[in-house]
Amino acid sequence: MGSLSEGVTQVLIPVSALIGIGFALIQWFLVSKVRVSNAPDSNGYKDRLIEEAETEEGVDNLEVTIKCAEIQNAISVGLLPLSLSLWFNDMKMEKLVIRKFHVRYENGATSFLFTQYKYLGVFMGVFSVIIFIFLGSVKGFSTKSEPCTYNKGNLCKPALANALFSTIAFLLGAITSTLSGFLGMKIATYANARTTLEARKGVGKAFIAAFRSGAVMGFLLAANGLLVLYVSINLFKLYYGDDWEGLYESITGYGLGGSSMALFGRVGGGIYTKAADVGADLVGKVERNIPEDDPRNPAVIADNVGDNVGDIAGMGSDLFGSYAESSCAALFVASISSFGISHDYTAMSYPLIISSMGIVVCLVTTLFATDLFEIKSVSEIEPSLKKQLIISTILMTAGIAMVSFFALPSEFTLFNFGTEKTVKQWHIFFCVAIGLWAGLVIGYTTEYYTSNAYSPVRDVADSCRTGAATNVIFGLALGYKSVIIPIFAIAVSIYVSFSLAAMYGIAVAALGMLSTIATGLAIDAYGPISDNAGGIAEMAGMSHEVRERTDALDAAGNTTAAIGKGFAIGSAALVSLALFGAYVSRAGIKTVDVLTPKVFIGLIVGAMLPYWFSAMTMKSVGKAALKMVEEISTDASLREMIPPGALVMLTPLIAGTLFGVETLAGVLAGSLVSGVQVAISASNTGGAWDNAKKYIEAGASEHAKSLGPKGSDAHKAAVIGDTVGDPLKDTSGPSLNILIKLMAVESLVFAPFFAAHGGLLFKLL
Amino acid sequence: MGSLSEGVTQVLIPVSALIGIGFALIQWFLVSKVRVSNAPDSNGYKDRLIEEAETEEGVDNLEVTIKCAEIQNAISVGLLPLSLSLWFNDMKMEKLVIRKFHVRYENGATSFLFTQYKYLGVFMGVFSVIIFIFLGSVKGFSTKSEPCTYNKGNLCKPALANALFSTIAFLLGAITSTLSGFLGMKIATYANARTTLEARKGVGKAFIAAFRSGAVMGFLLAANGLLVLYVSINLFKLYYGDDWEGLYESITGYGLGGSSMALFGRVGGGIYTKAADVGADLVGKVERNIPEDDPRNPAVIADNVGDNVGDIAGMGSDLFGSYAESSCAALFVASISSFGISHDYTAMSYPLIISSMGIVVCLVTTLFATDLFEIKSVSEIEPSLKKQLIISTILMTAGIAMVSFFALPSEFTLFNFGTEKTVKQWHIFFCVAIGLWAGLVIGYTTEYYTSNAYSPVRDVADSCRTGAATNVIFGLALGYKSVIIPIFAIAVSIYVSFSLAAMYGIAVAALGMLSTIATGLAIDAYGPISDNAGGIAEMAGMSHEVRERTDALDAAGNTTAAIGKGFAIGSAALVSLALFGAYVSRAGIKTVDVLTPKVFIGLIVGAMLPYWFSAMTMKSVGKAALKMVEEISTDASLREMIPPGALVMLTPLIAGTLFGVETLAGVLAGSLVSGVQVAISASNTGGAWDNAKKYIEAGASEHAKSLGPKGSDAHKAAVIGDTVGDPLKDTSGPSLNILIKLMAVESLVFAPFFAAHGGLLFKLL
Repeated sequence: MGSLSEGVTQVLIPVSALIGIGFALIQWFLVSKVRVSNAPDSNGYKDRLIEEAETEEGVDNLEVTIKCAEIQNAISVGLLPLSLSLWFNDMKMEKLVIRKFHVRYENGATSFLFTQYKYLGVFMGVFSVIIFIFLGSVKGFSTKSEPCTYNKGNLCKPALANALFSTIAFLLGAITSTLSGFLGMKIATYANARTTLEARKGVGKAFIAAFRSGAVMGFLLAANGLLVLYVSINLFKLYYGDDWEGLYESITGYGLGGSSMALFGRVGGGIYTKAADVGADLVGKVERNIPEDDPRNPAVIADNVGDNVGDIAGMGSDLFGSYAESSCAALFVASISSFGISHDYTAMSYPLIISSMGIVVCLVTTLFATDLFEIKSVSEIEPSLKKQLIISTILMTAGIAMVSFFALPSEFTLFNFGTEKTVKQWHIFFCVAIGLWAGLVIGYTTEYYTSNAYSPVRDVADSCRTGAATNVIFGLALGYKSVIIPIFAIAVSIYVSFSLAAMYGIAVAALGMLSTIATGLAIDAYGPISDNAGGIAEMAGMSHEVRERTDALDAAGNTTAAIGKGFAIGSAALVSLALFGAYVSRAGIKTVDVLTPKVFIGLIVGAMLPYWFSAMTMKSVGKAALKMVEEISTDASLREMIPPGALVMLTPLIAGTLFGVETLAGVLAGSLVSGVQVAISASNTGGAWDNAKKYIEAGASEHAKSLGPKGSDAHKAAVIGDTVGDPLKDTSGPSLNILIKLMAVESLVFAPFFAAHGGLLFKLL
Repeated sequence: MGSLSEGVTQVLIPVSALIGIGFALIQWFLVSKVRVSNAPDSNGYKDRLIEEAETEEGVDNLEVTIKCAEIQNAISVGLLPLSLSLWFNDMKMEKLVIRKFHVRYENGATSFLFTQYKYLGVFMGVFSVIIFIFLGSVKGFSTKSEPCTYNKGNLCKPALANALFSTIAFLLGAITSTLSGFLGMKIATYANARTTLEARKGVGKAFIAAFRSGAVMGFLLAANGLLVLYVSINLFKLYYGDDWEGLYESITGYGLGGSSMALFGRVGGGIYTKAADVGADLVGKVERNIPEDDPRNPAVIADNVGDNVGDIAGMGSDLFGSYAESSCAALFVASISSFGISHDYTAMSYPLIISSMGIVVCLVTTLFATDLFEIKSVSEIEPSLKKQLIISTILMTAGIAMVSFFALPSEFTLFNFGTEKTVKQWHIFFCVAIGLWAGLVIGYTTEYYTSNAYSPVRDVADSCRTGAATNVIFGLALGYKSVIIPIFAIAVSIYVSFSLAAMYGIAVAALGMLSTIATGLAIDAYGPISDNAGGIAEMAGMSHEVRERTDALDAAGNTTAAIGKGFAIGSAALVSLALFGAYVSRAGIKTVDVLTPKVFIGLIVGAMLPYWFSAMTMKSVGKAALKMVEEISTDASLREMIPPGALVMLTPLIAGTLFGVETLAGVLAGSLVSGVQVAISASNTGGAWDNAKKYIEAGASEHAKSLGPKGSDAHKAAVIGDTVGDPLKDTSGPSLNILIKLMAVESLVFAPFFAAHGGLLFKLL
């Protein structure tokens, strides 16, 4: 037993979660101080920004502010204001074409999400029924208690109860995930125009506005996830009592719910945002020669909407899913180890305590960015954001040591595929810490390969001299190369944590990587907020100076978004492996031997799935982009998410039911080891092309100037690379994280069914 | 015992091989009947084509023939004739630039290969020493005989002898592989101009000339490979006597030698050919607006040289390597099974008898194309080539049944990772046959995704309307999608053959896929020959009519080349798995359990290697292509092959020595399951872009016309896709086959060393 009593643990976790939520609300309040009034408006908008600032030369201050408000409303509420249409009066030639677009673009981010939620509601309903029926059928819907599998000699609750509670956990996870995405997006759209207005006062003010908004998202998500999980466990315990095996088995449904929503968020949102982006690039740059954020480019609003939908809501759901799954995997493995069997509540809750500590650490870290230091010049933005990561990682290392010392017994045994493994307190500390630091390594590698401050992106930019083809070749090669270090970092974490504490080690290593999730998400959400702020500044016709400030914010945001993606992928790999281990344990498999035909075909087919999935999602973007040149509709991008979604959701069900638990284990291992590579390379290739283009556009060095300016042949080549990269970095790449996690958690939830009734095809032959 | 006696087997195999060689020589003789004379020439060329043909309107017949001869010499012998330079006189403006290129391009295909062989000689020497020292050290260079591992109670030859004979086998394999590539290339360059001249007589004549030349290559290679292997086994037997374990262990060096040469052939040749091709495209089309095969484009000769080096010599070595490796894997597994222990020579030689039967079947099949039917119109070319595949597959199925019935005992036991497996004759028949037919499925799938007769390529062509970016996105998506069916085909073959006959089943399935290698290679080599024939026709200023005929030959060749690549990849997957199984057996591993940290990190790092390797090779092409715009040198592309070569050759040595046999097993499994996907998608993406471009250029349908003509925006977009695809389809993609095979065979050869002394790092920790 650790020295932390059950009572203290029962208080510590919810209090930390509530502190996190409170902190998020304070940040929101601070952002909202960028004043708004309830001026009446014929279009029904209540908010209007009437911030007083130094008047810009030659720009009507009030008019600009009103435009900002209107653009924000267009993005957020879903109606493109009439006044925006009136702007187009000076372009009579194109008016009709553009008006046609308008009608299509009237759906803003919120309305897009609501349409998406309608689809998701149907999915949740259907899948709940599937979970209940499949799991209920394990023991023929019997309501009799069963002897426990691991806690020998005791009676556990009936399989039917597990089916019911798994379904409930699934719904809770799905709803929490959706809520996280929705809140994040609300905050982001709320903050866009406010950041633009703050940019008129100075870069420091704008930075703080954008960063605080990101923090709202980060803390709400981390705290919410923890709180819902904590409350669910305690409520489930009312029924389960001492049957912790059943309790934590059912709780895994929470991870499944979280991740399945994330999949659709990422894919649907990703397709929408990227179709809009590709469309905007195509229409705006190539066909009409107008700049990216020019309001005359009608795909611009759609692009801004897309940034919010994909990068904020999608990333939020994704990381929430990882968080929920790694917690569930760790809890499940712990429940069948000595913690669970001896009912050591505090040790059992170790994953939750780590997350609680994470919230506190991130809170302190945030103060460094918003209160303890002030940004005065553009060059301080990126270092300040990166410092956040380092500070949180260092503080968290100490935090992990504390938690491990107080919450864990000095020695205990863990379940290790049929055998027991004796583990010491400090082993677990090492597992969590190595995951945490591996995340940092992966984040920084991602930055190195995608920031235009370093040679890889500059080489890609340079290759634009000889045209789009060499740009594409170099970009793809860069993405391939960028997998090397992350994979070694992941391999070392896996080896160390696996050797020290078996699958539990992997699960807590993943948790370690995600323990600073609040800071990671804050930094990540900061990116699209700044990006949109820039867009609004241009559309509202603000001065060059303001635009320069928002551009600087945006450039830093691009790099940090890449870091965030790196984290998401790295944690997904660890989480999937932990889930895979939990699945194997739950399915009662002792070895997953590559030298058996069943496993090997699973492995090779599993390794193929990321390609199949990418083919679907990339083609969707291509198709939607083609349509974008003519029209775009929310429904189209949502319908495109059904085939890839079905591929991911049905594969484990089909493989498990027809081919059995061993083949499914092969499929999971194959999709994991192949998917990670595709995901990293796709994300980084896309990120590099994006920043190579920006590097040429900014023309900050002699080298960059020799490639530019905008419109030069090299720049045109860079634009083609950027456009190719959009679906890679924002649709296929990040969705693959979810593919590998989701298949693993789904297999875990359905494991008892597959173990009981799976492998039909082989049984028939 | 089967009904075939040892004596008959001893005659059958070499006789079949000699028939194959004889047939190849006859074909060569027939091609050479396109008459040449020894006209004196100031530049020292002895050959000059003086074929009499219907005079073309407006073209001086003699002049054209002389030009053909000169261009052929430039490609083959390595000197760009002065007269060719004189052509450029009418372009005084560009003369200087072009003269600079000339000097660089004076190295033709042969001279490129010789430079390459110099590098390879050094490599062979160094690696021979490594093999000898590593394997010799297994028992501390002791010359004492050891008790056998599998044939209990008997004495086997000392490890030092195995080290020596493995080294010899390695050198034999390396030399045979090099010879195969060299001969293939000689024939191809010999046939280029002859095909062009025959095209003036009609498409049928030209087809036969090109196809016969391909057949020379195919039969020489298949027969040579078989003969050298047969002779080596019999010579080794003089020393080994009854110690078949040691004998067939040593013979695995043959596969290693074959494949390592193939790697360098593919990579070095691939980089050279593609740098030339990308360079030609860049210089010719984008920068100077002159057509691909225009003699004014100085990269054209280099491009033609490259076609021969990469597609013929590279593909020849690659398939030879697969053939040698699958034979070695099958022989090794058989030697430790009941065949080997009971010294049943005929059953032991089953893999060689299958190959012998393959030569006979392919011989009959070839007659269908060259003698039994005659091609009269352009539209018959492609069906005729495809019919070759179907005929050979059907005949071979009967052949396999015969061989299995006569050569194998009706029931016997096979080694299966520490256990024994009882197998029936007809089980083995099924294994070989399913490999054979899976090859056909993979070939046809490849064709479907890369021929512009079907919708996938047409969709890609259509996407060029909206620019290069959508073209690239659609092309990548197509490549990803094209892996689905081949992977299922491979998975089914693996499952069936693995279940029926363990690793022996996989090895003979791979042999089955390669049993029609002579026909496969003939079809494959036909492609570049026709391509070059077209190039020569244009350069020699032949009439539009002739050019149209060679274009038609070329178009069919492109599709069949894609089929060939499909075969190469499919067989590589099966071969690697068989080698992997042999490695595991030889290293004494009982299970390769994904649930152990050592194996899992091997798996994930192994899955990363294809990306690392692709990053190197693609970047090399990019770099070399950049140089191509300024200069090109043989040495540059050869130096570029060192890092990827080192990656492949050193990985097994490092992983085995430092991390041990289990981690290496993980690395092999990971690189296999991930590499196959990357290889297939890269090859098919590249092939699709190539044919999408050709589709637009040909303008054969209303749809194609709406996208063209040459120089239209859609065509420009298609050219960019084609250029991106070049390194994918000709360098990275096909080299990956070799990566996965080579690492597996190298591991197999070094397995005793790793088992004895490996895993240093873990021992130290």
